[in-house]
Amino acid sequence: MEKNILDYNTVELDESDNSVIIIDQTLLPGKTELIKLKEAQEIWDAIYLLKVRGAPAIGVAAAYGLYVLAVQIRNKVVGSHDEIEVFYEEFVKEKEFLNSSRPTAVNLSWALNRMDDCCQNAMKKGMSLNEIVEELRKESIAIQDEDINTCKMIGEYGLSLVKKGDGILTHCNAGQLATSKYGTATAPIYLGHERGYEFKVFADETRPLLQGARLTSYELHSAGIDVTLICDNMSGMVMKNGWVNAVFVGCDRVAANGDVANKIGTSVVATVAKRYGVPVYICAPTSTIDLNTPTGKDIKIEQRPAEEVTKMWYKEPMAPEGVKVFNPAFDVTDNELVTAIITEYGIARAPYNESLKAILDKKNK
Amino acid sequence: MEKNILDYNTVELDESDNSVIIIDQTLLPGKTELIKLKEAQEIWDAIYLLKVRGAPAIGVAAAYGLYVLAVQIRNKVVGSHDEIEVFYEEFVKEKEFLNSSRPTAVNLSWALNRMDDCCQNAMKKGMSLNEIVEELRKESIAIQDEDINTCKMIGEYGLSLVKKGDGILTHCNAGQLATSKYGTATAPIYLGHERGYEFKVFADETRPLLQGARLTSYELHSAGIDVTLICDNMSGMVMKNGWVNAVFVGCDRVAANGDVANKIGTSVVATVAKRYGVPVYICAPTSTIDLNTPTGKDIKIEQRPAEEVTKMWYKEPMAPEGVKVFNPAFDVTDNELVTAIITEYGIARAPYNESLKAILDKKNK
Repeated sequence: MEKNILDYNTVELDESDNSVIIIDQTLLPGKTELIKLKEAQEIWDAIYLLKVRGAPAIGVAAAYGLYVLAVQIRNKVVGSHDEIEVFYEEFVKEKEFLNSSRPTAVNLSWALNRMDDCCQNAMKKGMSLNEIVEELRKESIAIQDEDINTCKMIGEYGLSLVKKGDGILTHCNAGQLATSKYGTATAPIYLGHERGYEFKVFADETRPLLQGARLTSYELHSAGIDVTLICDNMSGMVMKNGWVNAVFVGCDRVAANGDVANKIGTSVVATVAKRYGVPVYICAPTSTIDLNTPTGKDIKIEQRPAEEVTKMWYKEPMAPEGVKVFNPAFDVTDNELVTAIITEYGIARAPYNESLKAILDKKNK
Repeated sequence: MEKNILDYNTVELDESDNSVIIIDQTLLPGKTELIKLKEAQEIWDAIYLLKVRGAPAIGVAAAYGLYVLAVQIRNKVVGSHDEIEVFYEEFVKEKEFLNSSRPTAVNLSWALNRMDDCCQNAMKKGMSLNEIVEELRKESIAIQDEDINTCKMIGEYGLSLVKKGDGILTHCNAGQLATSKYGTATAPIYLGHERGYEFKVFADETRPLLQGARLTSYELHSAGIDVTLICDNMSGMVMKNGWVNAVFVGCDRVAANGDVANKIGTSVVATVAKRYGVPVYICAPTSTIDLNTPTGKDIKIEQRPAEEVTKMWYKEPMAPEGVKVFNPAFDVTDNELVTAIITEYGIARAPYNESLKAILDKKNK
């Protein structure tokens, strides 16, 4: 199937037959296939096998998945003795099962715990089984709505920093495929596209896992956006040629001083951008701001297997057997290379120790 | 076979059975196989199919190849009427044939023309057929000796700029496999290795053609040098960690003002190196210095097919069908990012307009 990615969400609840619909991301970019998830094992597999990926999208898929299972449990236990207690016992079992699919994904347990809290609150209020399940439905939809709203607000703030016809460079995939809709780094691009901004986007392929080639160039291309795929080492030439007016990237964690951990290579892009006078904008939901981490030095960087560099994707090994490989998943971009950090509550600029705190104060007000 | 690359030359003349021996580079890094070339078609194929590659290595292979064919022609025509005229007619045919294998490779025609000049000079001097062929033998060996000497001198000058235990980063393959021996950017590394310098080398994989992964990490690893393969976008983290004391890279062309064209991504490495205070050394045989090119802006950059980025090497397409790709083969590193240019006649530093001219004056003295 050929479909514009903006026509649908990465994760959707289909209430007509009580299922979760996702794009199977393991088939991208060769094949765009929507799949329906109904059974607990199917939902677990989809998360475990990265058919759905990206912290926000995983959270939404888990919430919808748990709601879908809650409906099934209700249909099974309704009318039985102690139906609510029996329901809740099953509900917690399914929650724990889903939570085991990717134990280190923070958004997964966050979304599942939020559903659990919702369930317990409804029980405390003495609601009926049907009312409890209805509360869970609303909560799962709220989780997705908040995700979409966060991305949309980041998009609006980001869009205010660029103008029609601008060239934009992005790295890795902080795109719609990692969220419910719009993405983070791609949100200004999608919103601008809807309003006729006619951006020219450059997508770094992002070695070793090629998220930029496989996912970002795929989703922007599918939306009809002018996107050009480049290798990571071509950013210098593209910026020197004057083709880039702004860099938008996502982020995994923002330290209190504005140092930013993001996909490996982000600091290289930012260094090159500084040389050519191109602003670097970090698109960061407030959930990624961690004031308990003073600086980038305090962020531990995950090391990944050598095979991702030497063998994965390739027809044959691309390096001699036994050669050493350094394969960090992330790097830290120093705050002095960051022009601004764009959140759903506004834009933070240096000094970040103050501006990030102000953003969080606004959120918690 | 497992062999230390320093134990042999990339191209060798085997006088015992009148053949050229090369490493079949199309089988690297999976398999190290030496092959013998005797027939004109075999030599032509080896160059055309990139079994031997790198401008200096191609020149040497062509010179040895033409000598090997000259011996065969002599053995066929010796004693016939007008043997020298008949010999030369056949010799020129073979020269033209070899020259057609990679028409844009400057070193190929340069080496073949030098052999032709040698032959004509010997004929003018009234030498016998055997004497003419002996002159050709000496000339082909001289071409290789000069190549080895150039690399060795670059290695000596480069080695004077680093110290024992240093970390060195290199990009692409300006290695022994591209020359007869030592390479250019790798020459300081090999010479230092022979003298117990114990460098720690980082090799950029160098997308899209992966010369760093397939060739540089292979040849350094085979020589027992401590080499770590990284993706191009990891140079920032490696340098920020303080692991790199010098960058050595090769070059394709040096403009009169010291701007340098080299493999795509070199300017990114140099930009990152400048940020972290790491010196950038360009290893450039004087044959690559082009005073007729005023600046880097005057260097035309070759664009290559999209498939190198999206399909080549991979099991399946890594980007959506039809997405635009920008795939320049080279980029230009501004002279202000270049700490020094190392030639076989000494080290040039800014201002390059003066120092490069002085180097060439020294060469032509």
